[in-house]
Amino acid sequence: MRIGFIGLGSMGKGMAANLLRAGHEVRVWNRSLPAVEQLVRQGATAAGDPGEAFDAEVLISMLADDAVTRAVLIDSGALASSKPGLIHLSMATLSVEFIEELAVLHESVGAQLIAAPVFGRNDLAEAGKLNIAVGGPATAIARVQPLLDVMGQKTWPMGEDPVNAAILKIATNMMLISAIEATGEAMALTQSYGVGNSDFVEFITNTLFAAPAYKVYGPKIAARETEGAGFTLRLGLKDVGLALKAGEPNHVSLPVASVLRDNLLDAVALGEGESDLAALGVRAIRRSGQE
Amino acid sequence: MRIGFIGLGSMGKGMAANLLRAGHEVRVWNRSLPAVEQLVRQGATAAGDPGEAFDAEVLISMLADDAVTRAVLIDSGALASSKPGLIHLSMATLSVEFIEELAVLHESVGAQLIAAPVFGRNDLAEAGKLNIAVGGPATAIARVQPLLDVMGQKTWPMGEDPVNAAILKIATNMMLISAIEATGEAMALTQSYGVGNSDFVEFITNTLFAAPAYKVYGPKIAARETEGAGFTLRLGLKDVGLALKAGEPNHVSLPVASVLRDNLLDAVALGEGESDLAALGVRAIRRSGQE
Amino acid sequence: MRIGFIGLGSMGKGMAANLLRAGHEVRVWNRSLPAVEQLVRQGATAAGDPGEAFDAEVLISMLADDAVTRAVLIDSGALASSKPGLIHLSMATLSVEFIEELAVLHESVGAQLIAAPVFGRNDLAEAGKLNIAVGGPATAIARVQPLLDVMGQKTWPMGEDPVNAAILKIATNMMLISAIEATGEAMALTQSYGVGNSDFVEFITNTLFAAPAYKVYGPKIAARETEGAGFTLRLGLKDVGLALKAGEPNHVSLPVASVLRDNLLDAVALGEGESDLAALGVRAIRRSGQE
Amino acid sequence: MRIGFIGLGSMGKGMAANLLRAGHEVRVWNRSLPAVEQLVRQGATAAGDPGEAFDAEVLISMLADDAVTRAVLIDSGALASSKPGLIHLSMATLSVEFIEELAVLHESVGAQLIAAPVFGRNDLAEAGKLNIAVGGPATAIARVQPLLDVMGQKTWPMGEDPVNAAILKIATNMMLISAIEATGEAMALTQSYGVGNSDFVEFITNTLFAAPAYKVYGPKIAARETEGAGFTLRLGLKDVGLALKAGEPNHVSLPVASVLRDNLLDAVALGEGESDLAALGVRAIRRSGQE
Repeated sequence: MRIGFIGLGSMGKGMAANLLRAGHEVRVWNRSLPAVEQLVRQGATAAGDPGEAFDAEVLISMLADDAVTRAVLIDSGALASSKPGLIHLSMATLSVEFIEELAVLHESVGAQLIAAPVFGRNDLAEAGKLNIAVGGPATAIARVQPLLDVMGQKTWPMGEDPVNAAILKIATNMMLISAIEATGEAMALTQSYGVGNSDFVEFITNTLFAAPAYKVYGPKIAARETEGAGFTLRLGLKDVGLALKAGEPNHVSLPVASVLRDNLLDAVALGEGESDLAALGVRAIRRSGQE
Repeated sequence: MRIGFIGLGSMGKGMAANLLRAGHEVRVWNRSLPAVEQLVRQGATAAGDPGEAFDAEVLISMLADDAVTRAVLIDSGALASSKPGLIHLSMATLSVEFIEELAVLHESVGAQLIAAPVFGRNDLAEAGKLNIAVGGPATAIARVQPLLDVMGQKTWPMGEDPVNAAILKIATNMMLISAIEATGEAMALTQSYGVGNSDFVEFITNTLFAAPAYKVYGPKIAARETEGAGFTLRLGLKDVGLALKAGEPNHVSLPVASVLRDNLLDAVALGEGESDLAALGVRAIRRSGQE
Repeated sequence: MRIGFIGLGSMGKGMAANLLRAGHEVRVWNRSLPAVEQLVRQGATAAGDPGEAFDAEVLISMLADDAVTRAVLIDSGALASSKPGLIHLSMATLSVEFIEELAVLHESVGAQLIAAPVFGRNDLAEAGKLNIAVGGPATAIARVQPLLDVMGQKTWPMGEDPVNAAILKIATNMMLISAIEATGEAMALTQSYGVGNSDFVEFITNTLFAAPAYKVYGPKIAARETEGAGFTLRLGLKDVGLALKAGEPNHVSLPVASVLRDNLLDAVALGEGESDLAALGVRAIRRSGQE
Repeated sequence: MRIGFIGLGSMGKGMAANLLRAGHEVRVWNRSLPAVEQLVRQGATAAGDPGEAFDAEVLISMLADDAVTRAVLIDSGALASSKPGLIHLSMATLSVEFIEELAVLHESVGAQLIAAPVFGRNDLAEAGKLNIAVGGPATAIARVQPLLDVMGQKTWPMGEDPVNAAILKIATNMMLISAIEATGEAMALTQSYGVGNSDFVEFITNTLFAAPAYKVYGPKIAARETEGAGFTLRLGLKDVGLALKAGEPNHVSLPVASVLRDNLLDAVALGEGESDLAALGVRAIRRSGQE
């Protein structure tokens, strides 16, 4: 398939490479060039501007957030001049509000929007083992299914509205961050009475909380491993903000998310924005005066 | 082994039955008689008062909370008149403060206290498949290990201090309740945008949150299944209270637990105390005006 | 002075009438006509559209929020076609972000923006007894000072940046709403032990909290007087949202405001949006199951 | 009147001195001697132990908290051996639970308990200008009214139950601490946009919040004046704890108090326990990275 791919960050790079490996024709665009060159060496062609990437059957975007996506896709004029029939597979974590705005813009140019946010970090992106939630028109999804199968281990259909997939991603990230805070609070408590952090993590991740969220972050919190972030506190703050904002029009209060937001704001204010999300749990321990 | 067993509630009954089945000599005491009679039919002997149950090599207690345990074990005079050398296996969820008080009392009569709180609901108690955290003197634990093996699928040693096991139980319950609240908040959000509750639960329990805590409570919240409680909101409030209280002397703040406490207090105030813990998640949905 | 006045709601009506009474020439515009007609009877002239009101030395705007102000002042084209030298006295409660946007737009057309949010309810607006915080260029403020003196009992200068006055208003409203919640929580507690609500209010408003915020809302909460709202829960939610939003770029966490937001969202979700702000305090009492 | 006075801390000293000045016969007891000697120089007699102070018409106690009061009044045996007819005027801030326990103990020895917690700092205690809430049997209150009039500027009757006065004190302190936090949050916000802290305090304490609570703490927060504490963070944490605890049996949730508790715990954990309560507001500013 002729694919345009915009956004070759740590996730996008692996995803695009898998599409190339599966034999697709991929034209890539990225703000900074080294990533483009790397993909070109793997068989991609380079788009001179975002608009060139839109000249495709399927455009995949994987940019940092609403603002960057807006700048690259909308403000550049690329979306406005896209050809009718284009399918846009939006795989980043974007706000519900922006997805709604995008859906309207796509309709006005005869393009189809699918929201297909991904779950997993770099290693899973490279291995083609992401989980992918997907929301959009059924026929369009059917057409891109082979691409989703290349990038992910499983596709989770959430309905015909792109917003459905977007909110699933937002809600799940909120749950992940709340799991990290809860683990940190629990560890602050058990440590203060002398339980070893690794005994604690060993226990919870083999019993009630034997799940990836805890298996990834539990040991990191226990080891105070907050560098080398795949998922930074700054991004976590952004995502909790997306959840709170999405709740507003529907009057959904999220008191645990409010606590997370306040803690993340404090962390970012004090210079921890680029630390790994595990640092949220470590803060829970340190604010009690424990090391 | 000659065992005294005090507290034949929904958990204790199954645990005592397993000890009988394994060939131990068990003398049981319970406030209400039907449970005693049931165990007697399974081969137990009935103790006329708590003190009689103390006339054993190992006394196991599995009572509702600090207050009941205090009444039955201390105020009755049973502990004070126990024989030197007795091992007391305390398997209920008790406060750190009370465990510390019990430890002193045991020392003064030459008995040994092991805290061995259990994880799992009635069905696992009956099946002998509980997880058991254990804190206490190593030699005493070694002696009761055969009993732990009969009641549980695995023993998790937390050190020589009974408090270590007690705080592990308290912290884990706090995490469980916070997982339920977070799941409810996430579902309130996704539902408000049209995602099906079962699609949501299916997704999270097969990806990031593929763990018992979520597999048990996710579907219950999705189905608004809040009756037939193994673990009630009232007990949840008690357990969150144990966590907050345990944090105080060590200056450990637990902001998520504070949110849980407030929500649970409101629920109990409005008459939901006997609902299943899943009702906490359901409240998160209902307070947004959704059914 | 030749004044354009846009926004004749419950506050604007009284403010415009005072300007007329002081001998100023006032051209008014309002979305619904009855208020216009009422002011015309008091000596105002009616503007056919917002742009006509801009044909003045000083334009005063007193609209509901960012969105309405944007629609009436910007989207209508009125601001873009204003004459150089115009002073715009913006007296509504607007977001920091929008004030910043407005300031840029004003500069581009050679107009001057003063933010002059007001403190006080309808009765004080009618009596010309408002407190007015003011931020903007000193020379412009000097020119409109006579108008501020007519509408207010006192002007509180906050500096040359309109944002300074805007954030003062937002922060003060946040404090007011938090005072109402705190009063409600305190009353829930004292009432639950049998203290009379009016004894409580009498005490606090004559001792530590002998201030307007408490003297206005304390008796209302005590009397469960939540109708006839000057300041509704919906507006309160909007204002707390302005505070939280303003904190974000500067990484200022506001944990009490987060609690207020969650409670206000719940109230609005359950249909209390048009109740008086006092209803927030009443909710604190009712959620404990007390009437 | 023949008065026993127990507890000559910073408050008690001034109160006892006023009673002496008014011509009463005062026998004082205090844990440390210098304060006793000071009062003796002013005309008091020294009690050799707490029990001697009980040999009086009215016993006044003004000790730090439940624990100290329990040690000095109960564990010493003083209360148990008091003579029938004694009136005990308990003026400290004590828990509801402990007041209830005291009431029962008093009844059993034929003494009468009045809770009469005081509002105001040292200077008001010395000047005899405290506000005094009072709960207890009407006839007993009538008898001690002359003493209350000497120590306070006004007595606020709350009913016949000592608990009524105790809970009023607890709830008011909770409100005070929440006012300090809210002021700090507001100042963090306004300062981050360039508003001067003293402009802010000047404004609020002359408009909506023109009350002692804000006039005392606003300027302190603005000036980062956190030393020389009359009321420390440690005491504030204790008092918020009294409020939360008092809410429990009546299922009264206090979400703002929960936020205060968490912040105060963090402050104490990090070594700020002996700072003035104003430090809570300063923390709200500093956690945003501002000085």
